[in-house]
Amino acid sequence: MLASASSPDVYAQAIATRLLSRDPFGQWLGLELGEVRVGYCQLRFRVRADMLNGFGALHGGVAFSAADSAFALACNTHGRQSVGLTATMDYLEAGRLGDVLLVEAREESLKEKVSVYQLRITNQLGTLLAMFKGTAYRTRHEIL
Amino acid sequence: MLASASSPDVYAQAIATRLLSRDPFGQWLGLELGEVRVGYCQLRFRVRADMLNGFGALHGGVAFSAADSAFALACNTHGRQSVGLTATMDYLEAGRLGDVLLVEAREESLKEKVSVYQLRITNQLGTLLAMFKGTAYRTRHEIL
Amino acid sequence: MLASASSPDVYAQAIATRLLSRDPFGQWLGLELGEVRVGYCQLRFRVRADMLNGFGALHGGVAFSAADSAFALACNTHGRQSVGLTATMDYLEAGRLGDVLLVEAREESLKEKVSVYQLRITNQLGTLLAMFKGTAYRTRHEIL
Amino acid sequence: MLASASSPDVYAQAIATRLLSRDPFGQWLGLELGEVRVGYCQLRFRVRADMLNGFGALHGGVAFSAADSAFALACNTHGRQSVGLTATMDYLEAGRLGDVLLVEAREESLKEKVSVYQLRITNQLGTLLAMFKGTAYRTRHEIL
Repeated sequence: MLASASSPDVYAQAIATRLLSRDPFGQWLGLELGEVRVGYCQLRFRVRADMLNGFGALHGGVAFSAADSAFALACNTHGRQSVGLTATMDYLEAGRLGDVLLVEAREESLKEKVSVYQLRITNQLGTLLAMFKGTAYRTRHEIL
Repeated sequence: MLASASSPDVYAQAIATRLLSRDPFGQWLGLELGEVRVGYCQLRFRVRADMLNGFGALHGGVAFSAADSAFALACNTHGRQSVGLTATMDYLEAGRLGDVLLVEAREESLKEKVSVYQLRITNQLGTLLAMFKGTAYRTRHEIL
Repeated sequence: MLASASSPDVYAQAIATRLLSRDPFGQWLGLELGEVRVGYCQLRFRVRADMLNGFGALHGGVAFSAADSAFALACNTHGRQSVGLTATMDYLEAGRLGDVLLVEAREESLKEKVSVYQLRITNQLGTLLAMFKGTAYRTRHEIL
Repeated sequence: MLASASSPDVYAQAIATRLLSRDPFGQWLGLELGEVRVGYCQLRFRVRADMLNGFGALHGGVAFSAADSAFALACNTHGRQSVGLTATMDYLEAGRLGDVLLVEAREESLKEKVSVYQLRITNQLGTLLAMFKGTAYRTRHEIL
């Protein structure tokens, strides 16, 4: 038997797939799931013309939205419905039309009621475009 | 003649109108300009079905995007091109399908190179849904 | 009888007084309680020479600490022990030796498990030196 | 001769040593310089009884202050006087009396006018107590 994901990670992937399939705005963003594990999530999306701002660069809200989506998926991989309380976004470099951006969410802390995540958005050259930090409240409600 | 906006405020409105007219994602959001003055900007938009997340509530990224747009307009009303450095979003209550949301950006600090804004997002009942704080870097480039 | 504070506000004042009296670092800061109500707290302190940084201005950490203290008092005025999850500090103007600073904490949101506060630090001239935003988790433990 | 630090790193260490030696509040905190390189700084300090809060844990302001100091040193290692614009602190675990805390500041972005840092505070067991993110404005003034 080849190396395989552990059962909690398979469950995490099922949750992420289900949430993203029911997420109209996530679909508008064209988010594609990459690696998903418990407490971890990767997304990719391509910068389209309708995602630009008044200066011709990627709208900061679109970059934030992709990060917020990866944050939401990562904090829900534990199976308990979690909601974002607060998030911080740092803009380092502008995204450009046609860029393929990688969004990576990593769990920094998991407690009974609260979890914290750091995210990085990089482009196809590996340049760091933005950092995001999110804090989530974990309800008792099971997702699946 | 009746009371009228001062010349700097008229200039501020011209800048905001121009930036928003050239902002593809701002148009997707359906943002409508309300009151605009130097250092101040109001926007309104209606929550559509394609703005929801996987739990059936307004996607946090859409709320952030509307705030980020009002922040961008407010910090550019001085006429010098300004770019967001960092922003913080606090989610207090979920937005719902059909809500008409008011986004209000208020300047808290204006210095030679940096300006800071506080924003509030409220729904049609006056309920505070989210708070946003943004810090901008002011370039030397004139917008108009 | 003259106008008097309501019973919950008297209780809030008792909590703030007690917490501050047992707070060694708050005492080092020389924090003096001003107005306290449920969800609201004012503190004052004077900038001493041992509060300065390597550039001769008020150390940002001291300003933050005074704000963090007012935040802690305000979120505990409801009687349930509350702990800070995350805080954001914006530095607008430097504090100077001898300044008497006013720190004011205002509740923006109170939910069953989480509360959010905005704070402002002003000097004796009314100049806004810093803004602070804090999010607290509310435990079930009663303070008094 | 054995491996030695490069000249810019030696310069960075001279700046950090000088700033800390003139920093009254940094001395009150008992901050000890560890590794310093261009864009990087480590500090250590011991939690004393006068650093505690009203609940008997390390006052959040003291933890923030140590991080703010490491942030200030790291952003000044390039030799241009830099000032903090905004900072975010996430509290994950409480510090305790007698803990020896390590504060590590890492540069995430350096641009002409603005730089961004991520910091972590860990205790003697390696447990992550807090995360900090700071954004600095870089003046033209040379420090040495």
